Amino acid sequence: MPINQQQLYAAKQRISSYIFKTPVLFHPVIDAICGARVLFKCENLQKIGSFKARGAINAVLSLSIEELKNGVATHSSGNHAQALTLAAHYRKIPAHIVMPNNSPKTKVNGVRELGGEIIFCEPTLASREESLEKVIQTTGACFIPPYDHDLIIAGQATAAMELMGEYHGINAIIAPLGGGGLLSGTALAARYLSPGTKVFGAEPEAVNDGQRSFRSGQLEQNAPDAKTIADGLRTHLSPLTLGYIREHVTDINTVSEAEIIDAMNLIWTRLKIIVEPSAAVPLAALIKNKSSFKGQTVGIILSGGNVDLDQVPFL
Amino acid sequence: MPINQQQLYAAKQRISSYIFKTPVLFHPVIDAICGARVLFKCENLQKIGSFKARGAINAVLSLSIEELKNGVATHSSGNHAQALTLAAHYRKIPAHIVMPNNSPKTKVNGVRELGGEIIFCEPTLASREESLEKVIQTTGACFIPPYDHDLIIAGQATAAMELMGEYHGINAIIAPLGGGGLLSGTALAARYLSPGTKVFGAEPEAVNDGQRSFRSGQLEQNAPDAKTIADGLRTHLSPLTLGYIREHVTDINTVSEAEIIDAMNLIWTRLKIIVEPSAAVPLAALIKNKSSFKGQTVGIILSGGNVDLDQVPFL
Repeated sequence: MPINQQQLYAAKQRISSYIFKTPVLFHPVIDAICGARVLFKCENLQKIGSFKARGAINAVLSLSIEELKNGVATHSSGNHAQALTLAAHYRKIPAHIVMPNNSPKTKVNGVRELGGEIIFCEPTLASREESLEKVIQTTGACFIPPYDHDLIIAGQATAAMELMGEYHGINAIIAPLGGGGLLSGTALAARYLSPGTKVFGAEPEAVNDGQRSFRSGQLEQNAPDAKTIADGLRTHLSPLTLGYIREHVTDINTVSEAEIIDAMNLIWTRLKIIVEPSAAVPLAALIKNKSSFKGQTVGIILSGGNVDLDQVPFL
Repeated sequence: MPINQQQLYAAKQRISSYIFKTPVLFHPVIDAICGARVLFKCENLQKIGSFKARGAINAVLSLSIEELKNGVATHSSGNHAQALTLAAHYRKIPAHIVMPNNSPKTKVNGVRELGGEIIFCEPTLASREESLEKVIQTTGACFIPPYDHDLIIAGQATAAMELMGEYHGINAIIAPLGGGGLLSGTALAARYLSPGTKVFGAEPEAVNDGQRSFRSGQLEQNAPDAKTIADGLRTHLSPLTLGYIREHVTDINTVSEAEIIDAMNLIWTRLKIIVEPSAAVPLAALIKNKSSFKGQTVGIILSGGNVDLDQVPFL
């Protein structure tokens, strides 16, 4: 059964007192560059600096005391690790987080600060999955995946729900595409709340599995050594997210690394906010395809702001 | 006649559709560091990236068509230049801006983008004043000063008015102190809207004319070669702002350059927003004096976000 409208509203209500209703920003110079009215939904200003707080909190608040009695577990080198730790903190249960031993310090520290228990593993998918399996067997913790779950997707949908609740007549929303949780949620939110709003995914050319999967209908893979500055978008789709995206998304656009960096610089300089490279991908896609959006009102989901300041290419 | 409560409310209503009601952000780690609940009023996300839009727009909207028929003029190397140009744009009148020929490119470009006419001068106060005088004689433009004017002060007061309207029970508000327009306005706003809220100024040690003037009751000067990273705060008080500050401000605290940089880094890293050094001075003062604010709710006015990204010391 696909996620229905009631589940989206339930998610929004469930998490509303645990998350921030993030601000929407815009700038006349960006509007002029794009030839459109561009509304930025600032999930970089969300708790833990990412929309991921929404999905993880929705999932953890939805499960029963019985299911959560041994805590929760996941493997993640990124924002989902902090999001799940925060969600566990709200329910006063342990969070067991398997992290690759080369994870950025800032993210390791983020999990620690929130009281998460970190289990380091080798930086391979096999090691991550094996370590997680062991943790779950030892602790009995409940596995909460980063995107491949309806409760996660319904939580991520709430960012676009807030945006469309605050601004009517949005012609298009562009969200970054990694594993597809945010894009699936955004597309479902538009489908139910504003059927005239088209939803687009945006992805780095270097890891364009999403665009290829969208077109072929199969789960396509990226080359194992594929690299992009938008490290949050290297993940592959799952059957669940591919299904939602194929049904409800209009198109997936890809952008180059240079286009991502330019868009990121534009956001920093004009909006005065810090976004991670992944968050700049939708604006890059809008600028690249601006003739398709001319005169429209376009929403952009700025997914997160967790970037090591010494890794910013234009500084 | 000092500014009265009605003038503050009139300013708020007058400018409300021209400015942003900026968001208020906070972070648990900053709260823990300060031992207080710290609310950041984000004027870096204001139009032109600074609270200065409030005062300039209030002044320009208050004046008659007759007074403004030849446009407005000022001298400024900073945010007031862009603020006045924006205000003039709204009234469809020319803005003549005298800028030192060593002004940061980003600020010169900002004035140009908004349609301001720039007159370059030598980077001395004498040359600025002389050039401005010439512009006014030639054009008949109306001089709008950066802070030494009740309409400017009333406009700047609206940032604290919004903050106190959104959050009740604020024990203290700390604002940066340069020429004193923002601090005067903040103190008047608290005096009229929330008399239990104490207001503090924060200033770099290197340019502590404000603290010395506050204590002596005389207009003290900084050494002509005094330097601080918080370049927006090098300005001196005027008789008008000193009067308001002496009457309504509880104390002025000073901080070192290193303390400013640390606080700026903390804001960037935790709140995911870009602030200029001047905006970080109040948080630095709060951290330095945290024993005085223990357990309180403290508002911080983040004055602006106009910083050249290649000049940020911790990047």
